[in-house]
Amino acid sequence: MATKQRFALLGSGFIGQVHAQNLAAHPLVELALVADPDTARAQAVADRFGAQVATVAQALNSDAIDAVLIASATPTHAELLEAAARAGKAIYCEKPIDLSLERAKRVVEKVLRFNLPVTVGFNRRFDASHQQLKQHLQQGAIGRAELIQMVCRSSAMPPVSYLQSSGGQMRDQAIHFFDLLRWLTEDEVNTIGALGAALALPEIATFGDVDTSVLIMQMNSGALAQLDNTRRTGYGYDERISVVGAGGMAESASQCPPGASLWQGSSVTRPGLWPDWFNRVKQTYYQHLDAFVRQLNGEPVSGLPGLIDGLQAQAIAEAAVLSLAERRFYQVEAVLL
Amino acid sequence: MATKQRFALLGSGFIGQVHAQNLAAHPLVELALVADPDTARAQAVADRFGAQVATVAQALNSDAIDAVLIASATPTHAELLEAAARAGKAIYCEKPIDLSLERAKRVVEKVLRFNLPVTVGFNRRFDASHQQLKQHLQQGAIGRAELIQMVCRSSAMPPVSYLQSSGGQMRDQAIHFFDLLRWLTEDEVNTIGALGAALALPEIATFGDVDTSVLIMQMNSGALAQLDNTRRTGYGYDERISVVGAGGMAESASQCPPGASLWQGSSVTRPGLWPDWFNRVKQTYYQHLDAFVRQLNGEPVSGLPGLIDGLQAQAIAEAAVLSLAERRFYQVEAVLL
Amino acid sequence: MATKQRFALLGSGFIGQVHAQNLAAHPLVELALVADPDTARAQAVADRFGAQVATVAQALNSDAIDAVLIASATPTHAELLEAAARAGKAIYCEKPIDLSLERAKRVVEKVLRFNLPVTVGFNRRFDASHQQLKQHLQQGAIGRAELIQMVCRSSAMPPVSYLQSSGGQMRDQAIHFFDLLRWLTEDEVNTIGALGAALALPEIATFGDVDTSVLIMQMNSGALAQLDNTRRTGYGYDERISVVGAGGMAESASQCPPGASLWQGSSVTRPGLWPDWFNRVKQTYYQHLDAFVRQLNGEPVSGLPGLIDGLQAQAIAEAAVLSLAERRFYQVEAVLL
Amino acid sequence: MATKQRFALLGSGFIGQVHAQNLAAHPLVELALVADPDTARAQAVADRFGAQVATVAQALNSDAIDAVLIASATPTHAELLEAAARAGKAIYCEKPIDLSLERAKRVVEKVLRFNLPVTVGFNRRFDASHQQLKQHLQQGAIGRAELIQMVCRSSAMPPVSYLQSSGGQMRDQAIHFFDLLRWLTEDEVNTIGALGAALALPEIATFGDVDTSVLIMQMNSGALAQLDNTRRTGYGYDERISVVGAGGMAESASQCPPGASLWQGSSVTRPGLWPDWFNRVKQTYYQHLDAFVRQLNGEPVSGLPGLIDGLQAQAIAEAAVLSLAERRFYQVEAVLL
Repeated sequence: MATKQRFALLGSGFIGQVHAQNLAAHPLVELALVADPDTARAQAVADRFGAQVATVAQALNSDAIDAVLIASATPTHAELLEAAARAGKAIYCEKPIDLSLERAKRVVEKVLRFNLPVTVGFNRRFDASHQQLKQHLQQGAIGRAELIQMVCRSSAMPPVSYLQSSGGQMRDQAIHFFDLLRWLTEDEVNTIGALGAALALPEIATFGDVDTSVLIMQMNSGALAQLDNTRRTGYGYDERISVVGAGGMAESASQCPPGASLWQGSSVTRPGLWPDWFNRVKQTYYQHLDAFVRQLNGEPVSGLPGLIDGLQAQAIAEAAVLSLAERRFYQVEAVLL
Repeated sequence: MATKQRFALLGSGFIGQVHAQNLAAHPLVELALVADPDTARAQAVADRFGAQVATVAQALNSDAIDAVLIASATPTHAELLEAAARAGKAIYCEKPIDLSLERAKRVVEKVLRFNLPVTVGFNRRFDASHQQLKQHLQQGAIGRAELIQMVCRSSAMPPVSYLQSSGGQMRDQAIHFFDLLRWLTEDEVNTIGALGAALALPEIATFGDVDTSVLIMQMNSGALAQLDNTRRTGYGYDERISVVGAGGMAESASQCPPGASLWQGSSVTRPGLWPDWFNRVKQTYYQHLDAFVRQLNGEPVSGLPGLIDGLQAQAIAEAAVLSLAERRFYQVEAVLL
Repeated sequence: MATKQRFALLGSGFIGQVHAQNLAAHPLVELALVADPDTARAQAVADRFGAQVATVAQALNSDAIDAVLIASATPTHAELLEAAARAGKAIYCEKPIDLSLERAKRVVEKVLRFNLPVTVGFNRRFDASHQQLKQHLQQGAIGRAELIQMVCRSSAMPPVSYLQSSGGQMRDQAIHFFDLLRWLTEDEVNTIGALGAALALPEIATFGDVDTSVLIMQMNSGALAQLDNTRRTGYGYDERISVVGAGGMAESASQCPPGASLWQGSSVTRPGLWPDWFNRVKQTYYQHLDAFVRQLNGEPVSGLPGLIDGLQAQAIAEAAVLSLAERRFYQVEAVLL
Repeated sequence: MATKQRFALLGSGFIGQVHAQNLAAHPLVELALVADPDTARAQAVADRFGAQVATVAQALNSDAIDAVLIASATPTHAELLEAAARAGKAIYCEKPIDLSLERAKRVVEKVLRFNLPVTVGFNRRFDASHQQLKQHLQQGAIGRAELIQMVCRSSAMPPVSYLQSSGGQMRDQAIHFFDLLRWLTEDEVNTIGALGAALALPEIATFGDVDTSVLIMQMNSGALAQLDNTRRTGYGYDERISVVGAGGMAESASQCPPGASLWQGSSVTRPGLWPDWFNRVKQTYYQHLDAFVRQLNGEPVSGLPGLIDGLQAQAIAEAAVLSLAERRFYQVEAVLL
């Protein structure tokens, strides 16, 4: 029989609280400890979900803890990953591993040696639509993937302060789709070309970032892919993927919340898209956690994003950054070596 | 090999001109003669499509004429039907046979004796969507029909003068759907109940007409059906039918012309419905004619509406009129006897 | 500042557990007590949500209880309503008040005298789509309602044992739509006509029930409405409402869960409807509770279904039952007197 | 008052016959002459539409001809363009001007000197959906274009023999979208990057062609665009364009013919796309002709594609060909010089 996994939550900010709620709601999880340098925040989260406050060291040293969920600030991910691995805990780590691909590579190498269950926060793999898209592909409904089209459009510009430490649009936003592309096609990106500009907020060009970008990629199989990204749309959060093969097209389309429509004169007005990314994807955090917990309980679970997935997606992002800056095509392999 | 059918067009008003264009365009039809009491109008139509003007008598007496298309004023239909039958012509007659069910019954009885190809203008049977709906039903895709929902909503109120001689909403507008219901289900209406009101144009209540109505029917098989009618919508022309059976639902949905959509804020605005009934159904006139011509050329053609279909639909309309007026359910059979 | 409302849950079966979860999740509610003749079930629910087990008497006599949520078996509703009112508690009562309209009238009369906050479980009013539909109507987007079309189609036949004590399709299933119709139009049903049959499960005809029915109604304003009901569809749970006025149509359409679509050959296959009513409407229970709690905290809340709403909807159902049985139109007023 | 324009049709193959039908149907056009090296084919077309057969020389020398429509084989376009200009005729010329950009530049330079009405066959500008998309953009509905996504997917692989003389996917297929991009944005392509492969029919790689390709472009304004092309889809003909600006998205979506849908179990199957490009775009030929005729009759007509438009689109195609071959970004200007 499945046993309850006792989790320590490391980090209790916005995304940490999302995870706290899911950990508390999961029937096979006990949210035992919450750690955060901001102890007042940790206390509030712990109180709300019946957990205790602890330091990271206490959490990692406690025998009563089976797993940690790392939801702390990005610069701490690498260190906490390594420490949790040394402590022998199962690990759910928010992406990215580290903004520096070099440092990410080093920590992954170390953590892999411990042979522990580790998953990296590419939660969008657990979106119901993308999951069915993957299923269609696996069942051969459209044949081999030949042409993949991905749209990744956020509704509202984040604050400039966020953008300055985000790693830029490729490493922060597009990275989810680099992972989805690999996961859906079970193939690797060979070549990438990117064009981008700071059209929505020109000032971010001063620190080398873009808010709008278009990318084309060729996979090792020869399949061709494209992705467009924008940081703000004016029409809600638009995320969709379609895959064309010789047998047709499988499509995970834009999602709109329920609502009423108005038929007037010669037009009909319907509810548009979800207002923001969080409303659109929040269920995927629970689904991802659930898959991880099932793995911890010994179920065979496929598609859980691991450390190597984290590295590969970052390598594509790195190549995209270089392509954007230098206006030439890049090989992903060259970046990974 | 198929031979050209030589047609005389009787009546060259609005709907007569629609037929003229289709007759001229059909590769296996020759539009030879046009007859109309308004000879100037007949001449203009004849000139445009390379035909000659004639009187009805000349048309019916001419050996060079194989078939007539009766598109004259409603009160002349019965007489022309009978005369054309006596002359041995194949007949395509616009609906209704006659606004009086009694007179319609008498003329049908006479015309049937001549055993000629006759079709009545229930052109909506030839709508591409309804045809595919029928196909789904015939292939058993949803099993036996149990629940039928029909929507018949015109966009703009006709002039009061038209309404006064139209026979009323049941005989003039709903009748197409009484025919579609019989054709789709291959079943007969047993009982009908109707409620209606003059909501769009209250003055038509003075001559006993309604502009908005809801109807429920039970078929001989026990299946249940409903229909709503309105004379003006404010959102275009809305015609649709869906059929539910144990295996699912088959649906001939509302049709919208192509156009661009706008995604703005939290809504999306798309092109709405066709602006009027004519734009929505005009292709069905050609399809109906084509089916009739194929029949004349000896092809097996199923689903062509005949004289009995004309009578049956009128009988349902008659029962609906009685139900509306007396606020009680009616048996269709009682009206037919 | 809003204070927490302390609730006792009376009844902890399927729907009681749905309410328990919502009570526990609501930030301004404390689920204090759970009462159920099946004390083991009560204990399990209480344990899961941090509440205590109690008898109904203990719950009603306790000063620590502000409100009760009646989710017990239908035959107990009337008695519990009256007892809770005598105890001065605010009341959220599942529908119906009582299957006997007479008894329901009597208990409503008594309970109203206590002038307490009472809401009856017409949770579908809180569906996001229907709410936006109502908003469109209130804002005059389509003008005065003239034609209302409602579809109420359950996916799977309930067990015969359930149907035998359900009160029949009108009182058990259609009743939600009688309430929605009144709420949306702010008008009363004047006349009703219904046709029905036991098409999906003929044996239920033995106890006078139907599983498929079509209804037409005229409102006091003259507006016309229709409703169709079926107990099993073969294509999921289909609930939708549209309203036509002079200015257009407002529509709360069928809802489909997210998923991927397949474009193959000449067709596209998309995710269909929710598999059952519960998945489609479960959020409305929380929204209804939330509106009630806001009312208890003194916020002005419109649209909460009250005792009179419960009676009126039952009266329409009663008239529909009579119309079905006698095959004639019925006045709702005649039933209410 | 508008006068009839007398046209000579040069070329009566597949697309010439499409033009013949439109010329014959247009109320302000007289299809006077048909010229084709295959005189039997010319005769058949002339007979069907009441025209005469002539040689090209006769047509150009005849005072009774106002305009020519060049629908002959691609290698003859340049020569006929020049000859028709020398003869002072108005010209509707199928695209491309010439497969060699150099030759096209030379002939355009010559023809422009005659200052005659000339339009090049970018008929997709006249698609009802794209037209409304353009209108939305012109009315500022979404603000300045920032991100353009274009899909150009043919349903069936043309014969290899056709592909060998087609100029390749960029010059033959994508070129329509290079024109649409310029027309919609009223901007020029600055930089282009392309990746492509022969995935559907690998043998076409032997003559340097691809059947699947993805392109990204940056416009002079900074806006970013993407286009994907495939020669065969397995799901019909898919053509669509969307434009994102700060104010939202305007979209000319995929178009599906009418038909019935099936709701079964947990899915719904609807009619998919038009089976081929011709069914999807055939009305645009008439609309393009109509705009040209209105121009000839002195109406102010905007958006008619001219010779410069022909050259510009070819230059983008040329840059795309170079980018595909060399796997690096190209400046369009460098190609045009």
